[in-house]
Amino acid sequence: MLFFTQCFGAVLDLIHLRFQHYKAKRVFSAAGQLVCVVNPTHSLKYAPTRCAAAQSSAEQGILPPCHHHEAVHDPQLVPCTCPLFSCPWEGHLEVVVSHLRQTHRINILQGAEIVFLATDMHLPAPTDWIIMHSCLGHQFLLVLRKQEKYEGHPQFFATMMLIGTPTQADNFTYRLELNRNQRRLKWEATPRSVLECVDSVISDGDCLVLNTSLAQLFSDNGSLAIGIAITTSKVHNAEAEM
Amino acid sequence: MLFFTQCFGAVLDLIHLRFQHYKAKRVFSAAGQLVCVVNPTHSLKYAPTRCAAAQSSAEQGILPPCHHHEAVHDPQLVPCTCPLFSCPWEGHLEVVVSHLRQTHRINILQGAEIVFLATDMHLPAPTDWIIMHSCLGHQFLLVLRKQEKYEGHPQFFATMMLIGTPTQADNFTYRLELNRNQRRLKWEATPRSVLECVDSVISDGDCLVLNTSLAQLFSDNGSLAIGIAITTSKVHNAEAEM
Repeated sequence: MLFFTQCFGAVLDLIHLRFQHYKAKRVFSAAGQLVCVVNPTHSLKYAPTRCAAAQSSAEQGILPPCHHHEAVHDPQLVPCTCPLFSCPWEGHLEVVVSHLRQTHRINILQGAEIVFLATDMHLPAPTDWIIMHSCLGHQFLLVLRKQEKYEGHPQFFATMMLIGTPTQADNFTYRLELNRNQRRLKWEATPRSVLECVDSVISDGDCLVLNTSLAQLFSDNGSLAIGIAITTSKVHNAEAEM
Repeated sequence: MLFFTQCFGAVLDLIHLRFQHYKAKRVFSAAGQLVCVVNPTHSLKYAPTRCAAAQSSAEQGILPPCHHHEAVHDPQLVPCTCPLFSCPWEGHLEVVVSHLRQTHRINILQGAEIVFLATDMHLPAPTDWIIMHSCLGHQFLLVLRKQEKYEGHPQFFATMMLIGTPTQADNFTYRLELNRNQRRLKWEATPRSVLECVDSVISDGDCLVLNTSLAQLFSDNGSLAIGIAITTSKVHNAEAEM
């Protein structure tokens, strides 16, 4: 097991050496796994009030009118789910992906297992690293956020959200895995829906949480590699059998 | 996978119902796994200065004279490694286990895989939960500590240490696993030697770290179940083959 840890580390070393001078987002394949280099975006503004309102009606698959957008007259319309920007866009759930790609230039990756390589981990909080992941017929949003919950003590929070309804999200399990320096940390959970809010997931701490010291142990030259895998939940099949 | 998560949760529910009114440490077997109920001990005093001195010479397998103990004239003598008490005992590494059992009444469990069930997680920091684990011909010390690194924000730190030298510790890998509410968190690392210091491992954050919110998600009625497994590291065999 530790042998694979070292191999994985060596591959990442090579990847990092090759790409550390690139600033653009780049996607390539290494050792059969799709690796995506994700550059940080400094978050200028958070809008927690948007989320508080959203939370209550997320189960119905709609978002209510909110403070940061014009009133949503059509209940099928969804405000922009990208947590980076206070974006005035709103639209149907089906076109959220194309909006995130086109307006916010968020990359989308295909494949059951990918590696998310977040660069420049040393940048001050608040900072986000975001990518979309297309898998099992759905699109997911991976958010890594550096944030100071306690002043002067930044932490890293990573979560995965389905670009779909909470009911659809319940059908999946996502896994985030860090693997370096003979240490391995794995987080597995059901993704949340983007109709819920990434801010509230992070403030609840219901995600992979890393202290700065752990983040440094898992980082290589300021870059953090997170292995991502998405599977279909077995729980529904198992319940059906009972 | 989530099916097993739920089964595991159901087993723990039964365990908890059966044992929540017991206050003594109890060991029993459930679903083929040895489960040990570990009660907390409030830590009255930490002695970080002991550790700072110990750290530098831990590689040589000895501990230097230190502030909290009489000077160690025999370099083979080891001060009490139990992190709970500032204990004046010192002795050879071979008799540390019997000292911990007899003087500090720390339980010892046999078996490759055990479940550590820490009770009363709500108690204020600093609090420790400690057990010894006998496995693969060696004894390990599992320490779960609730501590406030940032005032008013207690965190939980869990680590495993070999009652042996750092060179011996390099031969093993330990895994700590939390599994509840459709979430799973796994930490894998090489154990540290008790000749190094649990305080420094925790202050470095080189262990499983849980915020209060995550600890609550994984707890059941105030008890946290941690699955523990120890294996022999494959890295040495792999290196020998090269």
